[in-house]
Amino acid sequence: MAPPVEGGDAALLPEFPRGPLDAYRARASFSWKELALFTEGEDMLRFKKTIFSALENDPLFARSAGADLSLEKYRELNFLRCKRIFEYDFLSVEDMFKSPLKVPALIQCLGMYDSSLAVKYLLHSLVFGSAVYSSGSERHLTYIQKIFSMEIFGCFALTELSHGSNTKAIRTTAHYDPATKEFIIHSPDFEAAKFWVGNMGKTATHAVVFAKLHVPGDQCHGLHPFIVQIRDPKTLLPMPGVMVGDMGKKLGQNGLDNGFAMFHKVRVPRQSLLNRMGDVTPEGTYVSPFKDVRQRFGVSLGGLSSGRVSILSLAVVNLKLAVAIALRFSATRRQFGPTEEEEIAVLEYPMQQCRLLPYLAAAYALDHFSKSLFLDLVEFQRGLASGDRSARQAELGREIHALASASKPLASWTAQQGIQECREACGGHGYLAMNRLGVLRDDNDPNCTYEGDNNVLLQQTSNYLLGLLAHRVQDGACFRSPLKSVDFLDAYPSILDQKFEVSSVADCLDSAVALAAYKWLVCYLLRETYRKLNQEKRSGSSDFEARNNCQVSHGRPLALAFLELTVVQRFHEHVHQPCVPPSLRAVLGRLSALYALWSLSRHAALLYRAERRRSCPGRRDRAS
Amino acid sequence: MAPPVEGGDAALLPEFPRGPLDAYRARASFSWKELALFTEGEDMLRFKKTIFSALENDPLFARSAGADLSLEKYRELNFLRCKRIFEYDFLSVEDMFKSPLKVPALIQCLGMYDSSLAVKYLLHSLVFGSAVYSSGSERHLTYIQKIFSMEIFGCFALTELSHGSNTKAIRTTAHYDPATKEFIIHSPDFEAAKFWVGNMGKTATHAVVFAKLHVPGDQCHGLHPFIVQIRDPKTLLPMPGVMVGDMGKKLGQNGLDNGFAMFHKVRVPRQSLLNRMGDVTPEGTYVSPFKDVRQRFGVSLGGLSSGRVSILSLAVVNLKLAVAIALRFSATRRQFGPTEEEEIAVLEYPMQQCRLLPYLAAAYALDHFSKSLFLDLVEFQRGLASGDRSARQAELGREIHALASASKPLASWTAQQGIQECREACGGHGYLAMNRLGVLRDDNDPNCTYEGDNNVLLQQTSNYLLGLLAHRVQDGACFRSPLKSVDFLDAYPSILDQKFEVSSVADCLDSAVALAAYKWLVCYLLRETYRKLNQEKRSGSSDFEARNNCQVSHGRPLALAFLELTVVQRFHEHVHQPCVPPSLRAVLGRLSALYALWSLSRHAALLYRAERRRSCPGRRDRAS
Repeated sequence: MAPPVEGGDAALLPEFPRGPLDAYRARASFSWKELALFTEGEDMLRFKKTIFSALENDPLFARSAGADLSLEKYRELNFLRCKRIFEYDFLSVEDMFKSPLKVPALIQCLGMYDSSLAVKYLLHSLVFGSAVYSSGSERHLTYIQKIFSMEIFGCFALTELSHGSNTKAIRTTAHYDPATKEFIIHSPDFEAAKFWVGNMGKTATHAVVFAKLHVPGDQCHGLHPFIVQIRDPKTLLPMPGVMVGDMGKKLGQNGLDNGFAMFHKVRVPRQSLLNRMGDVTPEGTYVSPFKDVRQRFGVSLGGLSSGRVSILSLAVVNLKLAVAIALRFSATRRQFGPTEEEEIAVLEYPMQQCRLLPYLAAAYALDHFSKSLFLDLVEFQRGLASGDRSARQAELGREIHALASASKPLASWTAQQGIQECREACGGHGYLAMNRLGVLRDDNDPNCTYEGDNNVLLQQTSNYLLGLLAHRVQDGACFRSPLKSVDFLDAYPSILDQKFEVSSVADCLDSAVALAAYKWLVCYLLRETYRKLNQEKRSGSSDFEARNNCQVSHGRPLALAFLELTVVQRFHEHVHQPCVPPSLRAVLGRLSALYALWSLSRHAALLYRAERRRSCPGRRDRAS
Repeated sequence: MAPPVEGGDAALLPEFPRGPLDAYRARASFSWKELALFTEGEDMLRFKKTIFSALENDPLFARSAGADLSLEKYRELNFLRCKRIFEYDFLSVEDMFKSPLKVPALIQCLGMYDSSLAVKYLLHSLVFGSAVYSSGSERHLTYIQKIFSMEIFGCFALTELSHGSNTKAIRTTAHYDPATKEFIIHSPDFEAAKFWVGNMGKTATHAVVFAKLHVPGDQCHGLHPFIVQIRDPKTLLPMPGVMVGDMGKKLGQNGLDNGFAMFHKVRVPRQSLLNRMGDVTPEGTYVSPFKDVRQRFGVSLGGLSSGRVSILSLAVVNLKLAVAIALRFSATRRQFGPTEEEEIAVLEYPMQQCRLLPYLAAAYALDHFSKSLFLDLVEFQRGLASGDRSARQAELGREIHALASASKPLASWTAQQGIQECREACGGHGYLAMNRLGVLRDDNDPNCTYEGDNNVLLQQTSNYLLGLLAHRVQDGACFRSPLKSVDFLDAYPSILDQKFEVSSVADCLDSAVALAAYKWLVCYLLRETYRKLNQEKRSGSSDFEARNNCQVSHGRPLALAFLELTVVQRFHEHVHQPCVPPSLRAVLGRLSALYALWSLSRHAALLYRAERRRSCPGRRDRAS
């Protein structure tokens, strides 16, 4: 394990080297060290510094930015680096339980160094490892130790060539043969090949393979996870019957080897079934603690929520890096000025400020949100581990699912747009590979589509909200959720009667103002979406059609606005806590207000239209 | 020269190979061949086919998509391909004069194959070649023939490390030494190094270098272009005193070798001065047909307008390619459906249609606009060549400058956003390098920043419009321009009194409706920007500050809305010509309406706000 960083503040947060940014830094209204301590806490700063120091001092992590690394070489290096991270053993299991935020912090540090490394590490230890741990039983514990010693290297094989979002249509099969007490894993055709599986391309020795479980009599019990050895750990040659390979070059994350696999009647022992959700007796009888196939399926995919929360934090890392690069460049780059002789830093232009500063605020707000959502997830997982089957635990799961499903889209898109803006705001210099903005954009991109396409995921959130409203309308139920993210909706009729009242621009610089407007907006969108959905159904649309017809104009903005509101709310509360040092209150308040107003402003057309309809209820838009 | 394609329609437009798209193609309401003939014309289709056939049959152009080509190898290949394009001699000088649209068509065909090739070819033949031709005199004609035979290979060196947009601050010097009748080209420090120069990195033997001209007595006559040999054409070794190199890996366009150069007192003959704008006598006296330094400077940079028009057409190519890839994928990819058994093509989802179809319409509208603006530019350049010094010619130059300065931003951003949407709409498959969406995005990206950063360029357009309004307000002048793009503004007071009246959604499917709304919007934005600017000045801002403070909220949307209006107007007229085949009218009309409404919808908040202010003039937004 790498030695932790010792010493006081000076060692932990040394002064920046002198340079062209000094002038701007001297003008700051607050101490950056105080802000870092408030945002992260000393223990976390020390933990991150330990990781960064280890990487800085290890030649395996040395690199020349913008170097022309071949695909093969990059994948090899990334694997060796991943292995080294395990050797450093930055985070013990006890530490993980004591300070769960160190888990995303470790992933974020790796992401700051290279997304490919963070994702490779995450896929093996958290996605593959958690799947084995949470879907398996005692007989699978032997794998866990091998995962952390990297004796075996794993991947999570759910998606197929022709099906990703629609997991129910996945077609790999696992037939049980009582004669040999084995499962026969089989890919019926190339469209059922496992596809896009991270780590599978070159390095994985084992895969958690999702396949439809059949027992004799050919009854299908739906998707189940199996742990399948796909390569020999010594030679990395494929196991008999497994055709496995690398998918080739991608837009980014090229250190990560995404792969495909087809199984030709591959026999695996009965014990390969990860049997928490259901098992097959040696004789071939299916047994499950869950009565309902859908419920079982839901639980077996539950692990995906934590994937989304991890992506949220990786997207935030990308945004932070890009904003820091672009702001520092803008503070030193001079172009034009009030006279031909005097040039000013481009950061002084209102245009540059409007382009970049909202993303700075977004980085702070989303960073805070990603931590707080991670802690909610930890609470949920502790409940799972302790066998909590209370109604609250179930509701917590639904709420976190709804929040995670919209937060991955919001964060990945904010990062995508932010990085693009940063890249353009740095002009030509932003186009040079060594300045890293291109890599950030390319590496962030899959955050928008993997673990559920953003647009598809947003439906999960809008459906959750619509379900709550239906429950309220039909059964008179209250809006109540364990994390209280929906509680305000209970007052939706009176919120919708409120008017936006501020007497000056200055008043808007309190994020409470934008927050109130957001609450109104979410209530409005929820009611309108519900109306539109019912109208669609009344006019003869099926459920499927009705939802599709509502999503673009209603469901999508509803899900995004709800999540933005949640982010704004949590950041607002965070920066208005009594424990905030007085010297930081002003700057944190401005960041909170800026993020809130900027996000809200993107719904301006909707707000105007809603007001117009309210002031002329009989009139409505002619064209609507 | 490659043999032209002979034969009738069947050879020119063969049927598509049978495949999974057949079902959709059979449902088309029009003949795609008829549309291709109407859009391009038979002669142009034949020309493009000649180019594509030559490339398809030449092994030098063979490639495996997604291949892992090293930077060095790619730059070498791209140079060899560029040379081969000259050998094919697709376009004779006579043809160029007879059918000027073949010039952008050739660039577009190369861009469809590879942006790096298109840009390399363009920089050598059109940018470097045109600069020598239009800024030089008879003594430089010897270079022109060497350019087309590729005996010499050229680049255009204006930008320096520390100055791009602000060309007046460029610091390379050229001191005339009467003793030897030479200029001494010198870079005072590394910030004055020529930078980002395309073709300079590896392959250029000659550069048009912009430097501040000094004659004895040290009087500076401002920036002038010099033709400077930077490498030996046989060995490609740098010439004495020239430090030249490659800038390394970029986000995209890596077949193009962008370079830097520093000159250490490099002596070039007096005749190296491209002397159309000004010359130095052997004794060292500066002479110029232009009296004013600013006027001379403006003329010497005039060539940049054609650069912007070329970029516009390259951006359109990128958009076309991305939209074709994403729509074809969406028509064959099936995911979910009304029942668990039946899956539907993702193109059937309203969400997917809303994401992709507007970009299809944009590709048609912008493609038409890029051709029509190119023809306007040809008219202007013919005037220049014939020595036209009329007021109309000067006005035409200003109008084209204003249109080109906003059309590069509009097209490059539309392509940027469109490619991103296409990439995401293809899910994971869009992230695989071989599917090309990543390359398109990366190659399109510099279109947003080179030849003038988009946000900086938009100021040129808003300033043009503001200047016309000031002229009208102060001198009672009419809004009149040679291409009539501003003529409608003459009626701005009455246009601003108009109300948007449509009785049904169906009525909006005529682009005339959106066009009328656009005219209102541009008038409104122009008046508001003018008011805001004057208000800023009255409250004590300098001109520089006032413009900066107006740009984000007023000048930028004004320039974009004006250009969108112009694009919509031209496409509307194009698709409503009497010569449009009756069978194409419906589909072209829908494309026109879709582009117009989609573009307009992005200004919805502004339209609502404007209406609100009009209906309650005393009220205005509280917070404004």
